[in-house]
Amino acid sequence: MTERNKVTVTINKRTYTIVGKESREHVELIARLVDDKMKEIYESNKHLDSTMLAVLTAINTMSEHVKLKEEFEELLTLIEEEK
Amino acid sequence: MTERNKVTVTINKRTYTIVGKESREHVELIARLVDDKMKEIYESNKHLDSTMLAVLTAINTMSEHVKLKEEFEELLTLIEEEK
Repeated sequence: MTERNKVTVTINKRTYTIVGKESREHVELIARLVDDKMKEIYESNKHLDSTMLAVLTAINTMSEHVKLKEEFEELLTLIEEEK
Repeated sequence: MTERNKVTVTINKRTYTIVGKESREHVELIARLVDDKMKEIYESNKHLDSTMLAVLTAINTMSEHVKLKEEFEELLTLIEEEK
């Protein structure tokens, strides 16, 4: 049986219960990073409501993720070519 | 002067204007990925409001991003060691 953890975190003053295989430490780290990014975006656009803030946080994170994925794939291709 | 693009995208039925150095193609791709992930999370939890949906989308994306970052760093360490 796969162990499933239940971790409660607070993001932008609301609590979320995350259920999954991830460790408590991983979920808490992720929540902190998301909360920090939301605060950062809020600081530069104080008129945004919480949905907009969360969507912009998701966009920002997705953008970094897609760029890192491209870099990762380039690196794998380089390694493959050097073999 | 750095060129700044203004791209309007729709996510979960609301429009967002994204201003930045990223190309229109990149911003549209990112918006589509975020919108798809929100829809996917909505399908498994239809009682969630839009803020919760967007926060869970950000958490999910951040989690994938942090894991990829770790893999990327491990790969760089491996390359460094082989030199």
